[in-house]
Amino acid sequence: MMHYTGVALERVRGFRDIYPEESEPRKLIFSVSERASEAFGFKKIEMPSVELLDLYRIKSGDELVSQCFSFEDKGGRQLTLTPEATPTVVRMLTARKDLSRPVKWYSFQKYWRYEEPQAGRQREFYQFNADIFGPSSAEVDAEVIGLASFILNGLGLRGNYRILLNDRSIMERVLRENGINDIQSGFAVIDKFKKTEREQFERDLSALGMQENRIKKFCSLLEQETPVEKAHEVLKSVIRYDQNDQSISRFNKLSKLLPAYSKDTFFFDMSTVRGLAYYTGVVFEAFDVGGKFRSILGGGRYDNLAELYSGQSVPAIGFGMGDVILELLLRQLGLLSVQKREQRFYIASPDMSYYMSAVEVASQLRTCGIPASLNISDRNMGAQLKEANKEGATDLIVLGKQELENNTVTWKQLSTGKQVVLRQDHFLKMLKDRGNRDLSFPPD
Amino acid sequence: MMHYTGVALERVRGFRDIYPEESEPRKLIFSVSERASEAFGFKKIEMPSVELLDLYRIKSGDELVSQCFSFEDKGGRQLTLTPEATPTVVRMLTARKDLSRPVKWYSFQKYWRYEEPQAGRQREFYQFNADIFGPSSAEVDAEVIGLASFILNGLGLRGNYRILLNDRSIMERVLRENGINDIQSGFAVIDKFKKTEREQFERDLSALGMQENRIKKFCSLLEQETPVEKAHEVLKSVIRYDQNDQSISRFNKLSKLLPAYSKDTFFFDMSTVRGLAYYTGVVFEAFDVGGKFRSILGGGRYDNLAELYSGQSVPAIGFGMGDVILELLLRQLGLLSVQKREQRFYIASPDMSYYMSAVEVASQLRTCGIPASLNISDRNMGAQLKEANKEGATDLIVLGKQELENNTVTWKQLSTGKQVVLRQDHFLKMLKDRGNRDLSFPPD
Repeated sequence: MMHYTGVALERVRGFRDIYPEESEPRKLIFSVSERASEAFGFKKIEMPSVELLDLYRIKSGDELVSQCFSFEDKGGRQLTLTPEATPTVVRMLTARKDLSRPVKWYSFQKYWRYEEPQAGRQREFYQFNADIFGPSSAEVDAEVIGLASFILNGLGLRGNYRILLNDRSIMERVLRENGINDIQSGFAVIDKFKKTEREQFERDLSALGMQENRIKKFCSLLEQETPVEKAHEVLKSVIRYDQNDQSISRFNKLSKLLPAYSKDTFFFDMSTVRGLAYYTGVVFEAFDVGGKFRSILGGGRYDNLAELYSGQSVPAIGFGMGDVILELLLRQLGLLSVQKREQRFYIASPDMSYYMSAVEVASQLRTCGIPASLNISDRNMGAQLKEANKEGATDLIVLGKQELENNTVTWKQLSTGKQVVLRQDHFLKMLKDRGNRDLSFPPD
Repeated sequence: MMHYTGVALERVRGFRDIYPEESEPRKLIFSVSERASEAFGFKKIEMPSVELLDLYRIKSGDELVSQCFSFEDKGGRQLTLTPEATPTVVRMLTARKDLSRPVKWYSFQKYWRYEEPQAGRQREFYQFNADIFGPSSAEVDAEVIGLASFILNGLGLRGNYRILLNDRSIMERVLRENGINDIQSGFAVIDKFKKTEREQFERDLSALGMQENRIKKFCSLLEQETPVEKAHEVLKSVIRYDQNDQSISRFNKLSKLLPAYSKDTFFFDMSTVRGLAYYTGVVFEAFDVGGKFRSILGGGRYDNLAELYSGQSVPAIGFGMGDVILELLLRQLGLLSVQKREQRFYIASPDMSYYMSAVEVASQLRTCGIPASLNISDRNMGAQLKEANKEGATDLIVLGKQELENNTVTWKQLSTGKQVVLRQDHFLKMLKDRGNRDLSFPPD
């Protein structure tokens, strides 16, 4: 065996060690997202964390590829740690011809980017992802966007976030009717609206062909966030409005459906276009109402991507939600600490000769799903009580000489200091009968 | 946007796409392991998936390093996808001086090996891991090995597996008293006992220095699996037995404690030594009783590893459990399909004009944690019923013209075909009142 060299081995830059106190938020985010997705009838998939680099080159071109955590493997292939979910999800979907549609999938995985680490941006991060493939309708759009709001509401964020929506095909018409024909460049400029100084932004619009007399009005439209139920009123003032036009009637329908999922949550916002090139219909992003953080989640309809990968046409809509911004927001709002405190036992005993009985009581508690720790370090009762407190125990079981002689347990509620002595078999039976609820103290 | 090139992009060799039907076993394994760990007072950590290659070179030498999925990053550093948990866990532990002991941690992550893919061995796999750092006692050993049995019992495997145990320090004495002084080579030979032809195995022992007249007896001892309570009887027949010897008294204590965690589960087996060099005390592995599969989990005490990494001495014991063998075993025993079937609703409606009401009913079900799907593809009632069956719905809500006019819902139990008509507000109130239980049919 080798010996310590004196050179401490550190973690790789941009990677996080997540200790228990920091692991709790992700457990919460994951369990709420998973339960919400299953409640909506989505099924879980798990994707490889390594893909051919070409998979991203096809979709996103060289910009994303330059941010990939890519490398050449021992066989000389250009591989990469996966930077996002969508290309793999689409690859998995198009590899299976037997799936009946709609296909509703979710996932929660790690991804990697080779970017310069900074506050809120690591080289390794988690992302939740949900997509529906198959039918293309306003109802499907509403189901996916509704899931996004259901998750955020489930995390306790109702009232603390807004989901901003727009539609790429409508926005394309808005641009054309305002003199901009290079649509991709138009989207790229608008995508930076909130980060660009106004004068510079107006010059950018002008350079793309927008007439001077339209620019002021256009900018004021980009600043508006309109409750989605009233989106049609804004649209009427911007484009030649025909309610039978397919894009418009579809967006109007979506606008009516969404409030059924969550009230006062959805807003029409013409500055939301999403930078990436592949969206074809509705696009959306969620932000905290305080405007303090980057977007919580984002997504949209992308009906052409499957065809690009496989030649098969499969309409699709989905969104991705990272763990980092959500954790910052939940922490700021104090929503990580208000979780109901779970009952948790510590079994104390004066010395290790009581260990067998302590294990028996602990096993019964654990089998009932109640966390229980016991003295495994041969410490005195004072040190055990300290350990119980450190572990967040709510209840103490004392198994001492007297208890063992009389086949009893002493059960102490730590918050009140009250205690009762019970027959051991009575205590164990009570545990078995209790189902999934906390044990009430004092017992009946 | 680029166009389809006609070249389908495949997944990288040795990596798996995990579709929903294959994702279920991992969800089960993970949730049982997580609940068991929390019930034992273990806390969750999450580790980077990329480390310096040197982290593994220090512990395991060049053999493991050659199996690492390693690469040079853009900055020229030798990095690797993590091949196992222990080095990172130890690095995280020794980086924090403020943690009060015992430290009890678990994790459930992906790992990677650059090995030739074969049945049951992929280049990417999941592993559950649990460790206790700090005090070193038989009680701590029992707590970790007890957790392993608690998880397997929780998965329904009671009676279908055995945990085989041995102790490295006792085994070292056994080897020395039988003429073998090169202990590491001795362990390496014994580790292959079950895979080596007997004649070859006897020649290997002889080459290591064991006298011919001891070899037959030694081999018959390696073949025995003795209930752990009777380990001392076997030991008495093999070595100069002194019950006050520290290793022996400690192993005897462990042997008495373990049955309190799970009866008829633990067996003393002298052929269990675990190949890797760093174990210092008890070692253990779990196997299916049918002897069909490789080990389900394995671990042991490793008291010197923290010192090797950091100069700090921290006693430690832990185990790792992969997903692959467990999934094969659970599947073979039919333990994946006997899960209680969950209540799951489908809300059918004749056309999309009923959609708002359908969303309202679905939202209420979902908020109560009951999975609910609805018609999002504008299909006729027959197609909707087919979709409900495909999704595994147990209950159907019909929202038709009559129901909407009368503010009612028709609730049909699909297994029996029985149905009732209820007032919609009554149905929604029943949902709110139900807590976490399935809705009983017919309702009260």
